Amino acid sequence: MKMNDFRKTETNQIKRQAARGHYDRETIYSILDEGYVCHVGFSLGNQPYVIPTLYARSENSVLIHGSAVSRMLNEIDKGIEVCVTVTLVDGIVLARSAFHHSMNYRSAVVFGTGRLIKEMTAKVEALRKISENLLAGRWEDSRKPTDKEINVTSVIEIPIREASAKIRRGDPVDEKKDYELPIWAGVLPVETRFGKPIPDSKLDAQIPVPDYLETE
Amino acid sequence: MKMNDFRKTETNQIKRQAARGHYDRETIYSILDEGYVCHVGFSLGNQPYVIPTLYARSENSVLIHGSAVSRMLNEIDKGIEVCVTVTLVDGIVLARSAFHHSMNYRSAVVFGTGRLIKEMTAKVEALRKISENLLAGRWEDSRKPTDKEINVTSVIEIPIREASAKIRRGDPVDEKKDYELPIWAGVLPVETRFGKPIPDSKLDAQIPVPDYLETE
Repeated sequence: MKMNDFRKTETNQIKRQAARGHYDRETIYSILDEGYVCHVGFSLGNQPYVIPTLYARSENSVLIHGSAVSRMLNEIDKGIEVCVTVTLVDGIVLARSAFHHSMNYRSAVVFGTGRLIKEMTAKVEALRKISENLLAGRWEDSRKPTDKEINVTSVIEIPIREASAKIRRGDPVDEKKDYELPIWAGVLPVETRFGKPIPDSKLDAQIPVPDYLETE
Repeated sequence: MKMNDFRKTETNQIKRQAARGHYDRETIYSILDEGYVCHVGFSLGNQPYVIPTLYARSENSVLIHGSAVSRMLNEIDKGIEVCVTVTLVDGIVLARSAFHHSMNYRSAVVFGTGRLIKEMTAKVEALRKISENLLAGRWEDSRKPTDKEINVTSVIEIPIREASAKIRRGDPVDEKKDYELPIWAGVLPVETRFGKPIPDSKLDAQIPVPDYLETE
């Protein structure tokens, strides 16, 4: 374990395909910084819930936001355990054998507990970070939130207590004898990209597409 | 509630943005059938976990698979509550106000408990369905699993007990007075597609790319 690694525990340790496990902050943070939709897991009683939402990383925390009356955010503020997972899919791994098919992906799984950010300046800064993580440059261009809008919004900060990443890259790995089979094998890349911006039907046609939306 | 809807309960009911909630099987199944990576949520003690994995829908069940020694699959087989979420991101919704930024997305959240499929024929058929949901046509083309490979694989079937979908589509919705602001607004589409297949470095160059991989 290096100084900058998260400690391996019963909670965050990768047991299946252990060689794909990573515990260093650089790897985990890079996955969190590339994604913008996370899946938040929490349980109420014995019922688990997994909810997709926008997020940002800030230092060693994950920030999420929503309505001030959101059940998820208010339950998290009570101190229940939370798991936040970010998955980036890079490709479908086509082995010669059905058994060795796989995905190329990078996932980060974060464990911790969260608390509401109540102080106004910190709250607005957290909202700005979530916005910038979604689309850099947009926050400055948009009409900033009013006090009323901030008050009906909750922001939760989840300091990362434990975390791990799991990464698979590269070619399929087949059984030695299967390499002789006349079956195409390789990786089908999965590409996620922004398309051409679609103007709001009510947009004044004089307003140009901003530079930060130039997607090609 | 229509005959073909899932019943609204405390567990599956969409409370935030209730107008975006859907409970009919057609909508929920169509989201499950379009995705291929789900996020499985479960708790051990009070610790939630959210794990990405491949899946398929079969009738009113979700099928997932993994190693026979997978902790997740073996815990699910004990009958703990499971939540399976599939999220399809369609676009980033850029409102004039920071407050009204949003995502266009379709998500399905499924609740139930799972059990291992132990009978060999049913197990292979479930594996075939997961493979076909990932890439139709591939199963027939690949070397089928041996009994040994099937025995070291677990397949879990989770009958869908409760479910809901949440969908947002279309233009941003701004405050009336904000429509006069000189700010570009609209939707930045998010497109996920397959790229050009990358042959395995050990592939016999005589083997052609199969038709079901033609991505353009």
